Amino acid sequence: MFSKNHFFGKDIVSIRDFSRNDLEFIFDSTDKIQQLTPEEKSELGKGRTLGYIFYEPSTRTRMSFEAAMAALGGSSIGIFDSKFSAIEKGESLADTIRIIDLYSDVIVLRHARDGSSRYAAELSSNPIINAGSGSEEHPTQAMLDLYTIFKEKGRIDNLTIGIVGDLKYGRTVYSLLYGLKNYHVNVHLISPPSLAIRKESIFEFERIMNINHYDYLDDIIPQLDVLYVTRIQKERFPDTQEYEKVKGTYRIDEKILDDAKIDLSIMHPLPRLDEISHTIDNTKNAIYFKQAAYGKELRSALLALILNEDPF
Amino acid sequence: MFSKNHFFGKDIVSIRDFSRNDLEFIFDSTDKIQQLTPEEKSELGKGRTLGYIFYEPSTRTRMSFEAAMAALGGSSIGIFDSKFSAIEKGESLADTIRIIDLYSDVIVLRHARDGSSRYAAELSSNPIINAGSGSEEHPTQAMLDLYTIFKEKGRIDNLTIGIVGDLKYGRTVYSLLYGLKNYHVNVHLISPPSLAIRKESIFEFERIMNINHYDYLDDIIPQLDVLYVTRIQKERFPDTQEYEKVKGTYRIDEKILDDAKIDLSIMHPLPRLDEISHTIDNTKNAIYFKQAAYGKELRSALLALILNEDPF
Amino acid sequence: MFSKNHFFGKDIVSIRDFSRNDLEFIFDSTDKIQQLTPEEKSELGKGRTLGYIFYEPSTRTRMSFEAAMAALGGSSIGIFDSKFSAIEKGESLADTIRIIDLYSDVIVLRHARDGSSRYAAELSSNPIINAGSGSEEHPTQAMLDLYTIFKEKGRIDNLTIGIVGDLKYGRTVYSLLYGLKNYHVNVHLISPPSLAIRKESIFEFERIMNINHYDYLDDIIPQLDVLYVTRIQKERFPDTQEYEKVKGTYRIDEKILDDAKIDLSIMHPLPRLDEISHTIDNTKNAIYFKQAAYGKELRSALLALILNEDPF
Repeated sequence: MFSKNHFFGKDIVSIRDFSRNDLEFIFDSTDKIQQLTPEEKSELGKGRTLGYIFYEPSTRTRMSFEAAMAALGGSSIGIFDSKFSAIEKGESLADTIRIIDLYSDVIVLRHARDGSSRYAAELSSNPIINAGSGSEEHPTQAMLDLYTIFKEKGRIDNLTIGIVGDLKYGRTVYSLLYGLKNYHVNVHLISPPSLAIRKESIFEFERIMNINHYDYLDDIIPQLDVLYVTRIQKERFPDTQEYEKVKGTYRIDEKILDDAKIDLSIMHPLPRLDEISHTIDNTKNAIYFKQAAYGKELRSALLALILNEDPF
Repeated sequence: MFSKNHFFGKDIVSIRDFSRNDLEFIFDSTDKIQQLTPEEKSELGKGRTLGYIFYEPSTRTRMSFEAAMAALGGSSIGIFDSKFSAIEKGESLADTIRIIDLYSDVIVLRHARDGSSRYAAELSSNPIINAGSGSEEHPTQAMLDLYTIFKEKGRIDNLTIGIVGDLKYGRTVYSLLYGLKNYHVNVHLISPPSLAIRKESIFEFERIMNINHYDYLDDIIPQLDVLYVTRIQKERFPDTQEYEKVKGTYRIDEKILDDAKIDLSIMHPLPRLDEISHTIDNTKNAIYFKQAAYGKELRSALLALILNEDPF
Repeated sequence: MFSKNHFFGKDIVSIRDFSRNDLEFIFDSTDKIQQLTPEEKSELGKGRTLGYIFYEPSTRTRMSFEAAMAALGGSSIGIFDSKFSAIEKGESLADTIRIIDLYSDVIVLRHARDGSSRYAAELSSNPIINAGSGSEEHPTQAMLDLYTIFKEKGRIDNLTIGIVGDLKYGRTVYSLLYGLKNYHVNVHLISPPSLAIRKESIFEFERIMNINHYDYLDDIIPQLDVLYVTRIQKERFPDTQEYEKVKGTYRIDEKILDDAKIDLSIMHPLPRLDEISHTIDNTKNAIYFKQAAYGKELRSALLALILNEDPF
């Protein structure tokens, strides 16, 4: 593994741009940042400004980045509701990016369209961090998911990982799968047929990874080391009754733990509605809040690497 | 009075949790923080983050806390409009608290339900400050009200305090009364019968305090040292005509000063509509803007006490 | 030119209050702030708070001020959507100003009414910066426009400046013209008759400046050193067809460059819709993004001058 920070001044556009070495360097930096005192941390972004633009609202991700930047002693400014902004007046993405580029040192962008962050990175002189774009990309979420697995299980290789829920529309699922391609893992995808992973993506994944598909969680739960749960959104179903039926089937509760490995780790990108029972929260299997905490630390580390030539 | 800070790492949930000694320690700290230079102040929250969640909007209270934290050199992040957040997606209060807990060092919560802050304090590892909950609690407002009286009158004991307006629905009134229970005061409550204080609360107050009820301000104005005015909201009245009639009756203008003590102090939690005439603003009786200024200082002092073992 | 900072603690209400000497002192300070290191800059606003109140939304201007303050190491708090604030509850401008005055060290105000900033400055103990008021005033925009011309052309005197678009409703146009009165310039105003500059304003301008009026850009483009473009808003036209016709007429594209001086500088206060073709963006004639960048620097310099007795 390289020891030099080659993320200084770089964009974070797609999880597919990151090798196993890259990810391990970021994980190592995330370990390091947690060993700093608050005073030491608050020097790494002093006098620097993060500019965010959320074309889709995402309080969770926005606050995680703001908190990560605040811990570095820096400021955050931006737009989290396009209704109140020049965007509403019809300004192009290009102009909005160019302007926020002038006002900040690093830009965090959430946008509905595929390729939006790549496009922004070409226009911007400062680094772009993709905070979710299109149907497949949310690279910092994938990094924090991988880091969480690595910290909680001690490794990623040779794990058996189940991903359950809405595999068709959840961009975190695709980003996680692209990230997992760097490791030797068994992946089990569990979803109702109408929310199965998109076929064009399966093809790419299956060439490299060992991927299996299941309709029901019961079939596969005993084999899993990690269960990654995603929300099934009512709006995806034309028929409410079908939603209610499906929802219950994929709900994670204590009964599921009966058949699971004793050290099964349950993850969720949050927010969680009732797809995981609150009775799971206090079991040692629930690591979704740890995952969010690691997320803030990993984003602090990434920002420190992007803003400083040699931060650690 | 104890001299050690025992608020370090502690929650501020209910004004009822604070003894006279506690309040005097906080008042003393508020005096002290006003003697620091801006540079000294800005060390007390350096590298620390305040996370706020306002389920009910309150620009006034939110900005007061943000300004208090900024003066300490810290940052604020949060949610002030639940419409744009995971809350809108149906996330539970518990999950929202757990997440903001990971992103910040102290949490400021405004929520419509009684007990919400107590519940949040049990879930959160970092301290919770109740910025208004349910029908009765707004502890930092009560503290700043008491501090204002103390600074302006030189004492709280043996004062005669009138509280006028909507005594039924205004949570600041209840919090102030709970705070006043620590002192020997005469309290006169003045309101239209339909907005009188809730009976179950009177009972508790009357056991300890000397409380009297009046329908009209004229009856009692000459006796008052302090007049605490609250807004009468149109929405509370089924009949607009009745509102218009009542509104005028409780309006504070110069005529009222004719019958008042020369040093009557007029307070208001703000925002004020027309329940206090603007002609009062420049009299020395009007202390509602001082009250807001003290509020920022008291909140800075509280945050400094919560975030530091020995700030002063 | 004076060398002492006489903006310390002062309001920025109207561009008409600023002499040529004043403007040059501000330009000189803007040059100086760009020579500081980030660390040096971040001492100029340390522990200080900017309070903003935008009664009209303007993401662009708000973010420019927030970025300018963040670069000085200070914080920003405020209201950018009156819907969520005490304003919505009916609070008066006076009360809102008085409160934000208690919470901050300098106030940035955007308000629809003429005179709002002057009124606020009388109420507030801290300095007010007018970030746009009424139909004519946006003084910091005018300053940054003049600074941009000065930096890009090396001078303002003896230039020929065209202003095109909606001259009736755009407050930036009036502020720029008031600023230009300090210089010896030829001004050409180009607009459809229905969006011509308001007659009462022409009279004042024409007494001092050499101003000419044109219906079409073609008539005058070869003479221009600077072309200042403003947006023509569809909502101004009762008839959509007329809008479509007019819009095209004033659209700036490469064909226009054929007849222009080789070093014509094209400016725009942004946001830009399609009144300037994106094909212009990469020509050396386009300086509208530079203009926005200068804006942030000029606002940092102004804030530094207002908050510090001797910042540079």
